[in-house]
Amino acid sequence: MNKNRIEALSDGVFAVAMTLLVFGFRVNVAGPAQLRSALLHVWPQLLAYILSFVIVGVYWVAHHTAFHFIARTNRRLLWCNNLFLMTIAFLPFPASLLGEYPSAQASIVLYGCTLIVANTSLTITWICAERAGLLHAGLPAGYSRFVILVTMTPAAVYAAAVLVSFFNLKIPLVLFAAVPAFFILPFKFVESRVARAISSMSAALL
Amino acid sequence: MNKNRIEALSDGVFAVAMTLLVFGFRVNVAGPAQLRSALLHVWPQLLAYILSFVIVGVYWVAHHTAFHFIARTNRRLLWCNNLFLMTIAFLPFPASLLGEYPSAQASIVLYGCTLIVANTSLTITWICAERAGLLHAGLPAGYSRFVILVTMTPAAVYAAAVLVSFFNLKIPLVLFAAVPAFFILPFKFVESRVARAISSMSAALL
Amino acid sequence: MNKNRIEALSDGVFAVAMTLLVFGFRVNVAGPAQLRSALLHVWPQLLAYILSFVIVGVYWVAHHTAFHFIARTNRRLLWCNNLFLMTIAFLPFPASLLGEYPSAQASIVLYGCTLIVANTSLTITWICAERAGLLHAGLPAGYSRFVILVTMTPAAVYAAAVLVSFFNLKIPLVLFAAVPAFFILPFKFVESRVARAISSMSAALL
Amino acid sequence: MNKNRIEALSDGVFAVAMTLLVFGFRVNVAGPAQLRSALLHVWPQLLAYILSFVIVGVYWVAHHTAFHFIARTNRRLLWCNNLFLMTIAFLPFPASLLGEYPSAQASIVLYGCTLIVANTSLTITWICAERAGLLHAGLPAGYSRFVILVTMTPAAVYAAAVLVSFFNLKIPLVLFAAVPAFFILPFKFVESRVARAISSMSAALL
Repeated sequence: MNKNRIEALSDGVFAVAMTLLVFGFRVNVAGPAQLRSALLHVWPQLLAYILSFVIVGVYWVAHHTAFHFIARTNRRLLWCNNLFLMTIAFLPFPASLLGEYPSAQASIVLYGCTLIVANTSLTITWICAERAGLLHAGLPAGYSRFVILVTMTPAAVYAAAVLVSFFNLKIPLVLFAAVPAFFILPFKFVESRVARAISSMSAALL
Repeated sequence: MNKNRIEALSDGVFAVAMTLLVFGFRVNVAGPAQLRSALLHVWPQLLAYILSFVIVGVYWVAHHTAFHFIARTNRRLLWCNNLFLMTIAFLPFPASLLGEYPSAQASIVLYGCTLIVANTSLTITWICAERAGLLHAGLPAGYSRFVILVTMTPAAVYAAAVLVSFFNLKIPLVLFAAVPAFFILPFKFVESRVARAISSMSAALL
Repeated sequence: MNKNRIEALSDGVFAVAMTLLVFGFRVNVAGPAQLRSALLHVWPQLLAYILSFVIVGVYWVAHHTAFHFIARTNRRLLWCNNLFLMTIAFLPFPASLLGEYPSAQASIVLYGCTLIVANTSLTITWICAERAGLLHAGLPAGYSRFVILVTMTPAAVYAAAVLVSFFNLKIPLVLFAAVPAFFILPFKFVESRVARAISSMSAALL
Repeated sequence: MNKNRIEALSDGVFAVAMTLLVFGFRVNVAGPAQLRSALLHVWPQLLAYILSFVIVGVYWVAHHTAFHFIARTNRRLLWCNNLFLMTIAFLPFPASLLGEYPSAQASIVLYGCTLIVANTSLTITWICAERAGLLHAGLPAGYSRFVILVTMTPAAVYAAAVLVSFFNLKIPLVLFAAVPAFFILPFKFVESRVARAISSMSAALL
């Protein structure tokens, strides 16, 4: 199974999942007169839309960075990746619930668990690629451990959000938003490690 | 009609169909209070989602493996492939019914028949390519018969599931799940035959 | 504006429109007991799905064949193509109406008019490319007239279907189905003309 | 992060968003008898569909033209682009509201604000690319200012439409339609500037 084909399918699933998030919006109004007040109450759905779009964007960057270092694929890697795509394609459902019921614990738990499965399956994909010797030669020692750390730490944050949701329903939402904020803000920690790994790999390819 | 274009359209249909499976999920609740109990009853829809996503994934692998050995296309092959894509694009409908009515015979029969049409049309695509001399040179003798066997055996299992559904409504679901499990598990039978065909074809291309 | 990018956007719209046709299916049942009888009445929607999927497939082939002969693009060609894509992306709406109300004149008229606009805009795209000198060199004399004939004849058949719908509601459906049947069946007329144009163009490129 | 991958994801989001616009159409009829009169009242939704499809098409052209001049990407550019894609993927929601409630001020304001965010985020993407030195060498002096002018002027028109909507509900719709009309009509102003920038850049690449 060709690596390019897996990336093409993954990109397709990402693009469709991102665009389907908009179906979380629903305004049920009897007529134009109530539209204005209905839209003024749509902001939880808008926040859930923005949060989920940004989170899927972070996954997309993480997925591409990981496949940048993967040289070949095998059947097992393919199915680990499919498990990850299954979670991404699933996300519009918990995202729409979170938008509609932002202060219900059930929607917070479902949203958090979906994200935990996504991060875990992406980590499994990476470990599977490493164990089977599918990574490019020349990766710096310890880079693989760094990838696992960077991918599983958010899962731990999401798990904390799920646990906190039994006591408080605002803090979990802050925790959900903190992870993408960490990856978007111009924080040098991740970027410099990835850049060093790329140049190290490129040197080995020469 | 170019082979790459057919593959691009097929990949697009696969990606969208996979992502649309999530619309099988529907929770109709009057308010946040009932959300938790509604979500606890959503597991048949979740299982139908996972089953269908994995089945579409298996079809995607089978489709790509088949087109790996197809060198050229013609009008007839294009329309056999379109018949196959029509079945893949249709799958979200029976999948959502199976998730909503997992113990109704009608949804089991519709789901099974859709899968039978998918496997049959993929087999017809292959036979059509073979008869018209569109396959790559150097395929091992008997490989074509092997492809037909591997593609039509699941159709037989699905037909058995449809028949069994007249007497029992649990066994068909087990049969549906058995086919993708067979193709995902690290079972050497299929993989080694495909690998041998690829190396045989590559040797002929030199 | 690059030709490849226009083709990529077009392929994306085609793939999504094909897959969205499945949303024409709707079964509203109160419970599993009525599912069987509801599905037995779903065949008009199934026929409308198959008809529309095949028609979109024919448009896809026609679009690719046309762009095979187009060497460059300009702003006008881009927007003619966008008008065509707008009609393709619109098709799931009349298709779902035709499936739900197959014997209502209104759905037949809307379906037929959508197809007329699609064929007309594809013809305009071709004429625009020809007038602006964007076609490949070496096309046989009269090939352009042949393309216009092959694209506008179906529009005439669809117009006839719309007219006939004022007197009879079955014949229009037969006329709708006749057009894709003509293009799918191994009818040598179109294929040989296209093949000759391709070889003539290739000779001119040497 | 590779430039091609960002373009591929963007194209996917554009294609899906364009095709999802059709879900703005909803006819709720009790039976086939009322279908005809229901369809005769669907024209506001049809106009909103055409308007939104054309506007997304203009954004697609603008996005591709911008990325034609962008040589490399960085993390900040990626997230500016994601903000833009988030707005494009969001558009089917205000578009469906505008189609359903064309004379409600709330839907006009939401539609206009969405377009303002889209134009602003596209401008920010361009400025970010320019500041970080990610543009191709050889762009004419003042071209960057021209891009910002051409992208922000529509935002000013949309802002005017939002303001006018407090007094009149027809003029905003005319203003919405005026912008894409300006970009589609064979108006030489924009095209010649872009063509000169391309040839200037190409000369620098030699």
